[in-house]
Amino acid sequence: MDVTNDAGGGLPVAVPSTALFTDQYELTMLQAALRAGTAHRRSVFEVFTRRLPEGRRYGVVAGTGRVLDAVENFRFEPALLGFLREQGVVDEPTADWLADYRFAGEIHGYPEGEVYFPGSPIMTVEGTFAECVLLETVILSILNHDSAVAAAASRMAVAAHGRPLIEMGARRTHELAAVAASRAAYIGGFSSTSDLAAGFRYGIPTAGTSAHAFTLLHDSEREAFAAQVDSLGAGTTLLVDTYDVPEAVRTAVEVAGPGLGAVRIDSGDLLVVAHRVRQQLDELGAHDARIVVTSDLDEYAIASLAAAPVDAYGVGTRLVTGSGHPTCSMVYKLVARASGEGEDAPLVPVAKKSLGGKLSVGGRKWAARPADGLGIAEAEVVGTGPVPEELAGRQVAVELMRDGRAVARETLDAARERHTRARGRLPLSATQLSRGEPVLPTRYVGATP
Amino acid sequence: MDVTNDAGGGLPVAVPSTALFTDQYELTMLQAALRAGTAHRRSVFEVFTRRLPEGRRYGVVAGTGRVLDAVENFRFEPALLGFLREQGVVDEPTADWLADYRFAGEIHGYPEGEVYFPGSPIMTVEGTFAECVLLETVILSILNHDSAVAAAASRMAVAAHGRPLIEMGARRTHELAAVAASRAAYIGGFSSTSDLAAGFRYGIPTAGTSAHAFTLLHDSEREAFAAQVDSLGAGTTLLVDTYDVPEAVRTAVEVAGPGLGAVRIDSGDLLVVAHRVRQQLDELGAHDARIVVTSDLDEYAIASLAAAPVDAYGVGTRLVTGSGHPTCSMVYKLVARASGEGEDAPLVPVAKKSLGGKLSVGGRKWAARPADGLGIAEAEVVGTGPVPEELAGRQVAVELMRDGRAVARETLDAARERHTRARGRLPLSATQLSRGEPVLPTRYVGATP
Repeated sequence: MDVTNDAGGGLPVAVPSTALFTDQYELTMLQAALRAGTAHRRSVFEVFTRRLPEGRRYGVVAGTGRVLDAVENFRFEPALLGFLREQGVVDEPTADWLADYRFAGEIHGYPEGEVYFPGSPIMTVEGTFAECVLLETVILSILNHDSAVAAAASRMAVAAHGRPLIEMGARRTHELAAVAASRAAYIGGFSSTSDLAAGFRYGIPTAGTSAHAFTLLHDSEREAFAAQVDSLGAGTTLLVDTYDVPEAVRTAVEVAGPGLGAVRIDSGDLLVVAHRVRQQLDELGAHDARIVVTSDLDEYAIASLAAAPVDAYGVGTRLVTGSGHPTCSMVYKLVARASGEGEDAPLVPVAKKSLGGKLSVGGRKWAARPADGLGIAEAEVVGTGPVPEELAGRQVAVELMRDGRAVARETLDAARERHTRARGRLPLSATQLSRGEPVLPTRYVGATP
Repeated sequence: MDVTNDAGGGLPVAVPSTALFTDQYELTMLQAALRAGTAHRRSVFEVFTRRLPEGRRYGVVAGTGRVLDAVENFRFEPALLGFLREQGVVDEPTADWLADYRFAGEIHGYPEGEVYFPGSPIMTVEGTFAECVLLETVILSILNHDSAVAAAASRMAVAAHGRPLIEMGARRTHELAAVAASRAAYIGGFSSTSDLAAGFRYGIPTAGTSAHAFTLLHDSEREAFAAQVDSLGAGTTLLVDTYDVPEAVRTAVEVAGPGLGAVRIDSGDLLVVAHRVRQQLDELGAHDARIVVTSDLDEYAIASLAAAPVDAYGVGTRLVTGSGHPTCSMVYKLVARASGEGEDAPLVPVAKKSLGGKLSVGGRKWAARPADGLGIAEAEVVGTGPVPEELAGRQVAVELMRDGRAVARETLDAARERHTRARGRLPLSATQLSRGEPVLPTRYVGATP
């Protein structure tokens, strides 16, 4: 499968412009800086997080491809400018400046699917203050949301030990967040989605057959199963827990024959029920009929079913809500800016004074991940200034955008494979589900945190 | 202010169609039912929740207006049908049926802003099985997301005791979920939003002035403040915690004069800092300068600042993630359907057999909320069959859509006022932040849960 990740339009996710996914203060700062003559100072903004969600061992970068789309489509059409003028959000010179806006700077960052740790420079945005300051909200929205879902997906994929995971969470989150969640889940290791919009927009394989309503619509479970098999073939998945599970399994095999594709169980003690259903299916000769389970699963429930005869997991709520951590705490901070207005004015590192534990490290950063002889990562090294020679080949960030043009588009499969690879190079404790410290320590070089 | 809530287009939230915000099984069920001849049985689907999030006293319905938009725009354009055919999701007869699809049924439900409890029939969708089954995912996505945010907003509004609340969470959630979150927060009691898309789409008042980056861009805090005041006037809000708070407050009043609009504090021990800043502002003669606080607030932090000299709260992460409960557990269940294919075939109640504690009550429901002599609600009464005479005037649900046309559009302000009114009629313990049981018991009449 070749899942494309391009900026192409297509209903219903594409929006004509992303320029209003912006907090008002970005525009008021722009206006004040334009007037003060400081708006065109070369600036470096950095996306990073001070900590992982409590107990998590690693983070997963997702949303990078969507960020590239969003930045390329960040334009102020006349209707938007009219709104901003009318509401007095910006003055005329600022509105005029916005009319010509397109980001023409550089973006480097962790490629999609890569893992990250506290202090990792996940994305670095460089250009004038004016052009960079406007991108704060849209970049953070995308990365914070998508990375939260990808991290949950990754843990679930670890717990599933290779059994396929189906994303079924659309009904539990905003209808467009759902589409991005499907995308992030795929990167984190899910195989398919129930969400047709995600299939349409991103080419993610879709799945789904029937709900309890279909059984209840018919005068008997047998009639419902017969109708489904008649329409979808014996290879379909029959939902067997509307009334009595053993009776439903018997009816399912009678109706579909021993070639029945699968049964789905959506309630009860899945461990016990799965064993009984497997035994019953085998006794009925339906040895190849698979068992899909779908009731309020998270990574712990999935892990607890490792020894059960389960062939696939459908996961909804806990996936799209980040399994307890529905957002990441990524921030977008000015870390360096030119000391004056000239093009050659040197960059100076800047940082808010630490207060209440909010750590900020000034300066444009690089990150490298040295490995031991077996290729297992040893630390997340974050530095300012020149990259030490021995770490030059171990850098994590790549160029994502040059002169405002995306240079690192890739398929979702590429990001998904990168994630599996990156996770595989972490120390083994990364894949423990238990709470713990980040699996790699962050070491600062040439900068005092 | 007249906040409109109509279906009007407008960038960037409008999407050409909502028809793909659909789980695949809805289409496969449709196809099988069309083939079996059962697709046109009259059906009643109900949105309800079996429980509130743990410890919550009441739920808040939000998203109703968005559901009306979504249902009216639920159309399968040729591009979508082409995708569904190509992927083999549906067969030709089903694709042909979808091409003409428009919902032509009836929707009743709790009006937006109303409170709800376990078992409340929040929305009732009636029509043929075929036309109703397709709406499951989009309706649940909207109601589950928006109601989760509105519930958090309502608790925060209670905690703020009339002080204004500013929604600032866009960066912590999906970029379009953020717009819906602003809308839900406004219904729940917030006053304004930082999100320009929410201002543009829904007319919610927007707010915002500057971030630490603006101070760091300039060569000194004084220069930054001067630039901001020069651009936005002395009535602006200056951010005073980039370096040293007392020095910043002194500089702020020096630069803006005693007519300084407000200062914002975004870190540190807000209780202590707010008191010191208030004292300092008063000593400097800036008696009318307000104090806005914005650091990781939730309803508990807001309540803890009740005695602090704080004039407004900016809330982000905890609001848009539902303050610990980022989704509701609303489900969409077939509760009744015709016993045969004829138009006059009587409706029969249906329900999945309870298993693993999943309670379902069959039958088309009404809900009423009787009150005591002071107008305080006593119970959430949910019933099937005829409404008892003494409860007829106490019914909660209203007609929302007739023959597929919305009949209950209203402004956001109407929903916001309804919420304040509905919350005010609950027993006093509803506004305790502490964990507890739902503040109204749900009583079933004429149906056995």
